[in-house]
Amino acid sequence: MSLNTFGHLFRVTTWGESHGPALGATVDGCPPGVTLDEAMLQHWLDKRRPGQNKNTTQRQEPDQVRILSGTYEGVTTGTPIQLMIENTDQRSKDYSEIARTFRPGHADITYHMKYGRRDPRGGGRSSARETAARVAAGGVARAALAQLAPKLDIKGYMTRMGEMAIDRDAFDWDAIETNPFWIPQGPEIANEWESYLTAIRKDRNSVGGEIEIVARHAPAGLGAPVYGKLDTDLAAAMMSINAVKGVEIGEGMAAARLKGTENADEIFMGNDGQPVFSSNHAGGILGGISTGQDIVVRFAVKPTSSILTPRRSIRIDGSPTEVVTKGRHDPCVGIRAVPVGEAMMACVMLDHMLLHRGQVGEMGGRIG
Amino acid sequence: MSLNTFGHLFRVTTWGESHGPALGATVDGCPPGVTLDEAMLQHWLDKRRPGQNKNTTQRQEPDQVRILSGTYEGVTTGTPIQLMIENTDQRSKDYSEIARTFRPGHADITYHMKYGRRDPRGGGRSSARETAARVAAGGVARAALAQLAPKLDIKGYMTRMGEMAIDRDAFDWDAIETNPFWIPQGPEIANEWESYLTAIRKDRNSVGGEIEIVARHAPAGLGAPVYGKLDTDLAAAMMSINAVKGVEIGEGMAAARLKGTENADEIFMGNDGQPVFSSNHAGGILGGISTGQDIVVRFAVKPTSSILTPRRSIRIDGSPTEVVTKGRHDPCVGIRAVPVGEAMMACVMLDHMLLHRGQVGEMGGRIG
Amino acid sequence: MSLNTFGHLFRVTTWGESHGPALGATVDGCPPGVTLDEAMLQHWLDKRRPGQNKNTTQRQEPDQVRILSGTYEGVTTGTPIQLMIENTDQRSKDYSEIARTFRPGHADITYHMKYGRRDPRGGGRSSARETAARVAAGGVARAALAQLAPKLDIKGYMTRMGEMAIDRDAFDWDAIETNPFWIPQGPEIANEWESYLTAIRKDRNSVGGEIEIVARHAPAGLGAPVYGKLDTDLAAAMMSINAVKGVEIGEGMAAARLKGTENADEIFMGNDGQPVFSSNHAGGILGGISTGQDIVVRFAVKPTSSILTPRRSIRIDGSPTEVVTKGRHDPCVGIRAVPVGEAMMACVMLDHMLLHRGQVGEMGGRIG
Amino acid sequence: MSLNTFGHLFRVTTWGESHGPALGATVDGCPPGVTLDEAMLQHWLDKRRPGQNKNTTQRQEPDQVRILSGTYEGVTTGTPIQLMIENTDQRSKDYSEIARTFRPGHADITYHMKYGRRDPRGGGRSSARETAARVAAGGVARAALAQLAPKLDIKGYMTRMGEMAIDRDAFDWDAIETNPFWIPQGPEIANEWESYLTAIRKDRNSVGGEIEIVARHAPAGLGAPVYGKLDTDLAAAMMSINAVKGVEIGEGMAAARLKGTENADEIFMGNDGQPVFSSNHAGGILGGISTGQDIVVRFAVKPTSSILTPRRSIRIDGSPTEVVTKGRHDPCVGIRAVPVGEAMMACVMLDHMLLHRGQVGEMGGRIG
Repeated sequence: MSLNTFGHLFRVTTWGESHGPALGATVDGCPPGVTLDEAMLQHWLDKRRPGQNKNTTQRQEPDQVRILSGTYEGVTTGTPIQLMIENTDQRSKDYSEIARTFRPGHADITYHMKYGRRDPRGGGRSSARETAARVAAGGVARAALAQLAPKLDIKGYMTRMGEMAIDRDAFDWDAIETNPFWIPQGPEIANEWESYLTAIRKDRNSVGGEIEIVARHAPAGLGAPVYGKLDTDLAAAMMSINAVKGVEIGEGMAAARLKGTENADEIFMGNDGQPVFSSNHAGGILGGISTGQDIVVRFAVKPTSSILTPRRSIRIDGSPTEVVTKGRHDPCVGIRAVPVGEAMMACVMLDHMLLHRGQVGEMGGRIG
Repeated sequence: MSLNTFGHLFRVTTWGESHGPALGATVDGCPPGVTLDEAMLQHWLDKRRPGQNKNTTQRQEPDQVRILSGTYEGVTTGTPIQLMIENTDQRSKDYSEIARTFRPGHADITYHMKYGRRDPRGGGRSSARETAARVAAGGVARAALAQLAPKLDIKGYMTRMGEMAIDRDAFDWDAIETNPFWIPQGPEIANEWESYLTAIRKDRNSVGGEIEIVARHAPAGLGAPVYGKLDTDLAAAMMSINAVKGVEIGEGMAAARLKGTENADEIFMGNDGQPVFSSNHAGGILGGISTGQDIVVRFAVKPTSSILTPRRSIRIDGSPTEVVTKGRHDPCVGIRAVPVGEAMMACVMLDHMLLHRGQVGEMGGRIG
Repeated sequence: MSLNTFGHLFRVTTWGESHGPALGATVDGCPPGVTLDEAMLQHWLDKRRPGQNKNTTQRQEPDQVRILSGTYEGVTTGTPIQLMIENTDQRSKDYSEIARTFRPGHADITYHMKYGRRDPRGGGRSSARETAARVAAGGVARAALAQLAPKLDIKGYMTRMGEMAIDRDAFDWDAIETNPFWIPQGPEIANEWESYLTAIRKDRNSVGGEIEIVARHAPAGLGAPVYGKLDTDLAAAMMSINAVKGVEIGEGMAAARLKGTENADEIFMGNDGQPVFSSNHAGGILGGISTGQDIVVRFAVKPTSSILTPRRSIRIDGSPTEVVTKGRHDPCVGIRAVPVGEAMMACVMLDHMLLHRGQVGEMGGRIG
Repeated sequence: MSLNTFGHLFRVTTWGESHGPALGATVDGCPPGVTLDEAMLQHWLDKRRPGQNKNTTQRQEPDQVRILSGTYEGVTTGTPIQLMIENTDQRSKDYSEIARTFRPGHADITYHMKYGRRDPRGGGRSSARETAARVAAGGVARAALAQLAPKLDIKGYMTRMGEMAIDRDAFDWDAIETNPFWIPQGPEIANEWESYLTAIRKDRNSVGGEIEIVARHAPAGLGAPVYGKLDTDLAAAMMSINAVKGVEIGEGMAAARLKGTENADEIFMGNDGQPVFSSNHAGGILGGISTGQDIVVRFAVKPTSSILTPRRSIRIDGSPTEVVTKGRHDPCVGIRAVPVGEAMMACVMLDHMLLHRGQVGEMGGRIG
C-alpha cells in the first residue's frame, strides 16, 4: 500500500474527489487476454450505487464508468486500464462555511492538520464516493479471476446492523440478492431490518454495520510469509475502506476467548484426494497462506458521522460551532460497503494468484 | 508489504528460520544520527524472550542481538542496519516424522501446498521465533522515535485471555510492568490470571489472548489517503504477526453496534490551543490520519495450536495420523505478542513520520 | 519502477494508448500547497507537441491537458493528481493489415511475444505519444520544485544529430530556445542542422540524436546508497523513454578511456563557504549522491524506425512481407525527446528531494 | 530500486560496510525448489575476489559466504535467503585523519553532505566491497535461472581499458576465461593489456574500463511497458554499481550517429519456426521487451579515484589538504566489475522471468 495505490502485481491506484470533474482507478498489471467491457464493470457499480432505496443516500449518481485504456476489441492487452467515472451530480453551492468547519467524525480536521488545506466539496478525497473507483477496479479483477480461477466465487453480505444480527442457523445463500441489505435471510428478517433502519433514520440518527466477505472455492497456496500474508493484505484492504474500524479472519476477535481444543481445525483426506478440515475457525488461512477452504473476512463499519442531530465542533480559527448535516446521507453506510468489500477481496485474490504464479509457477506441493 | 518486507521509508525485512543458523532483520531507511547500540535492542528482546516463567515456553533462547552494519561509533549512519540473532538452542534430532506430518492449525500444510517443501525444524519460517526479529527492528524504530518524537509513548498490555478480561474502570498504567501478563491491573487480578492459565496448561490445553497497543502523545497528521492510511498500515502490521486473527482501531468491531450519536467524538479547543475531543471512539485516527489523540489498536491471538491433547491430521502421503505436541510450548502465545505488537506499532509510527516529513515537510495546518 | 509507475514518493503512473480515447498520468505523492493549473502544464506540452515544423510529425495533436483531481482553487491538496489528454486526432481506418504485421524496430513483435496481442492503432502503448503524459507529470514536478528549490533550473538541449554535433566551445545557453533543435548554438549552426535534417527526410530516412539534460543549482545530498542512487534513478528514467539506447552521467562512456589523473575533480572551498570543484567529470554525482555541482545526464535516441524506405519483416503467421511507413513521422525523434528528458529529470529531482526530506529531514552535514 | 533494495519479485537488499563485522545480501522472492549451496555461490565470489594478481588490490579477502536462511537440505524453500560474508581483513588503525578528510572522487563528501556523518573505515558503505554481496545474490539468481531457463548463458568481458580496446573481428568466447581481464581475445592481446596496465600502475595512476555483459539464449517476452522495461531495469542495475558512469543497450550512444536504414534489424522466419533478425542493433530489446536475440549491455567504469598521485581536497572544517592514497588499490576497478555486471544481469533476468510468469503465465504469443 503506497498512499493511493494497493496491490503488488495487480496494482490499483484510485484518484479523484467527490465533487471534482471525475474520479477513477488506474489499474496496472492486469493479465492480457481478459474479456472486459464497460457493461461488465457497470454491473458492480450499479450494485454500489446510491439512490436505490430510501436507506441509501438519495443523491443520484449514474456512476457511468468508461474504460479509457488497456483494452482492444473488448480484451485486455496487459497495459494500464484507466477507469473514469465523471461526477455529474455536482451541485454548485457556497462551500465557504463548510470549508472552515470541521465536521466531527470526518477527515476534515485531519486533512487540514496534515496538508494545511482540503477540498471541502462533498468531503473531497475522503468521501465514500472514492469507493466507486474500487468497485470498478474490483470488476476488472473479477473478470480476470473468471478466467484464471473460474470456480472462485466471491460474495459479501451484512451480518449485523446495530442491534440486528443474522441468524447463522438460517443462513441462506440464495436470499442474499433478494433484499436491500444483502443479508442471507428470508424476507421476514429483511423486513425487520428495514423497520429498524427506518426508525433510526426517522430518529435523525445512523447506525454501524458488520459485513462478511467469503471467497468460496479459493485456490490453496495463495499468500506468503511473513508480511505478504494473504490475511495481512485482506486486513489492509478492508481497513482502507472508509469508516471501517475492525477486520477479522475466521474466528476473528473471538479467538481470544477460545481454547486450543475449541479452535482446532482437524485435517482429513477428502474423497476427491484433497484435504478437508473438520471446521474453519481459521477462515481459510494458515500461516498467511490459503488452505483451500472458504476464505472468510469480516469487517465493521462505524455509523455515518453525518447525522441530522447537532454535534459540537470547532472551526479552523478555533471558534466553537455546531454541525448539523443537511441533505442526503446514508443512515447505514455499511450497506453499500458490501460491494466495496467484495471488490477489495477480488483485487487481493487476483493479486495473490499472480504473485504465486510469479514466484512458484503453476505447481505447488501435492498431498496424497 | 512485500513478502518479507514491510514499511514504506523505514523498511524492515525479516529473515531466518526457527532452527537455522540465525535469524534477523534488515532495516533500511533509518534516519542518520540516531544513538543506537546492542544493549538498547536487547532491552526489548529480553521482554519478549521465552523461558522467563512457567507460562511461556521453557526453551532457553538467549536471543543475543548483534548489529552487523549501519552504525558507526554508536550512531546510525543512514545505511542499512543488519540485526542478527544466532540460534543457539538448536537441538539436533530426527525430523523425518515431523517433516511428513502436517500439524493441525499450523502452516505446515499451507507451506507445503504453496512451495512443495518446507523446513520442518521447529516450524521453520512460520515459527513465532520470527517475531524476535520484529522486536529487534522495533527497538531501532523506538530509538529513532526517541529523537524525532520524544513525547511519544508506545505501550502494550493484554486485555483478555480466554475468559479473563481486564476491568477498564480499574485501569492502572503503572501496573503493566509489574506482572507477567502485562495487564494494567493490580496483583490480585494478576494472580487470578496466573491461576487460570495454570489450569489451562495442566489441562494440556491452550488459550487465546487479546492485546491492546496504545501510542500516547502521537503527532497529528500521520497517515495518508487512501491506501496509505495509518490504520491500514497498523492493521496490516498486526495481522502479519503469527496467530493474529483480528485487528481493531478504537471501537473496532463494536462500531457495528453503535449509533451515530453514540460514536461521535465531538471537538473543542483545549487550553493549550490544540483541539481536544469529547471521547476517542475513533482510536485516534480519522480518514486514515492521526488526530493527535491516543492511537489505540487491539488484536486477537488465537490459542496455540500445539497442544498436548491429540489432534487428528494427515501426512504428506494422505494417510491419517494423530498429532500430539511434545516439549516446550506456550499455553498462551498472546502474552509474548505484547512486545511484538509494540514493536510493530513503533515501526509503523516511525515510517509514517518519515513519510509525512517527505511529502509535506515539517509543517501541517494550524488551528486557531 | 513498477511496470507503468516510476518514482518512490513522487510517483507517476502513465496510462493510455496512442489512438485510444485518452492518455494521461496519475501523479501521487505531490506535496500539498503547490500552485498548479492547466496552463502551467500546457506550457511544457506545447514544447513537446508535434506538428510545429516540418521536422516533426505533421500529425496535429492539440494535446490539451486537463487536471481531473488533486487540486482545489488552483493549489495541490496532497491527493492524487489525474492528468488527462484526450486523443482528438484519431483517424478511423482499417488496421487489419497493420495488426498482423510486425514493423521492424518497433515493439509490435515483442508486445505480441509477451502478451499474445496488442493494440495496433498507431503503435498503441508503445507509441511516443506516451511521452506526452510524462511531460504533463514533469510539469507538476516543476511546479513543486519551483517552491521547494526555487534556484533549481532544469534545461535540455541536443548535443548531436547524426553527423552534426554541437561545438562546446561556443556553448550558448541563451540560444537554446531560439532554434527548433534546442541546440546551444547560434542561428548559423541551427541552419546547418536544418539543412542536414531536410536532406535526411528527403532521402526517406531518419537519424538518431543525443540529448543532454542539466540541472543547475541542484541541492547537494540528494540520492542514496546503494540502489536508490540519484544516477541510478536518472539512468532508469531516461532509459525508459522510447527509443533511448544509452545513458551517461558526466563523462559517461568516455570515462573508460580516462586515467585517474584526468578524471579527478579536485575540491576547494569557495568564497561563499561552499565546496567548489576544479571540474565536473562526475556530472554532479559521487557515490550516488549529488555534490551541489550541475547534474549532467546525456542519452542517445535511436533513429526513428518508421521510415519511408521499405524494410523486410514478417507477419504473425510467419509469412514474409515488406514494410514501408506511410504518413506522418519524425525524421529525428530525438528533437522531441528534449522536453521529455527535462520532464523525467524534474520528476527524479523532486522525488529525491522528498526522499531526502523523509529520511534525513531538512539538515545534512556542514562543511567549514 | 528502493535505497538498498532492487528487484520487483526477486528482491535483493545488500547491507554492510567495508570494515564492519560483516556484509551481505537479503534475497527475498527466490522460487522454491532451487538447488543451492555455499560452494555454488563461492564460485562467483572467487571470480570477483581481489588479491588474485598484481592488477587488483592485494588486500586479502577470503570472502567466504554463508547461507544463514532460506534453504533446507540444499534446496531453497521460498523464504528469504540471508547471505553473509564476514570481514576478516579489517586492519585496526587510526581513522581520525581519514574521517575528517574528503577524498576527491569518492563519496566521502556526499555522504557527509547528506547524512552529516559516515563510516570512514575503508570507505564504509560506499566501498566497492559492497559488490561482493551483489555477486553472492547473483549466484542465487544464476542457480534459479539454471532451472527456469537452462539454456540462458550470461557472460561478461572487458571491451576497453583506457587506450586498449578489443578487436571485435577476433572475438573469441573461449578466450574470456583464459586471461585476467576477461577479454575475448588471445594471449598476445592479453599480454599487451597487461603491459599497458603495469605502466599505468607504475605511473601511480589508474584507468577506466568498459564492460559488456551478454545474455545468450534469453527468452523472448521479458520486460514490460513503460517503466518496467527490461532495458530500464538493466540500466538501473548497472548504473548502481560503484564508479559506473554510462550504460548502453545494443548500439548505445552510437545510435545517435546512425540513420534509420543503418539501425534497422530486419525480421525473417528462421528454420526452427522462430523469428530471426538480420542484425542486433537493438541489443535484444524492443519497446522494453526482449526479442529472443542476445541481450547486450555495456557500461563504463571510471578510473579508480584512489591514486598514489597527490590530489587537492578539503577537510570537514573547510581547510585545504592534499590526499595521496596509500596502500592497496586496483589500478583498474573495471576488471572486477565484470563478475559484478554478470551478477546484476542474472538478478534482472530472473526478476523479469518471475514478473512475466506472474502477469502473463507461461504462454505468450505465437508466431507462425
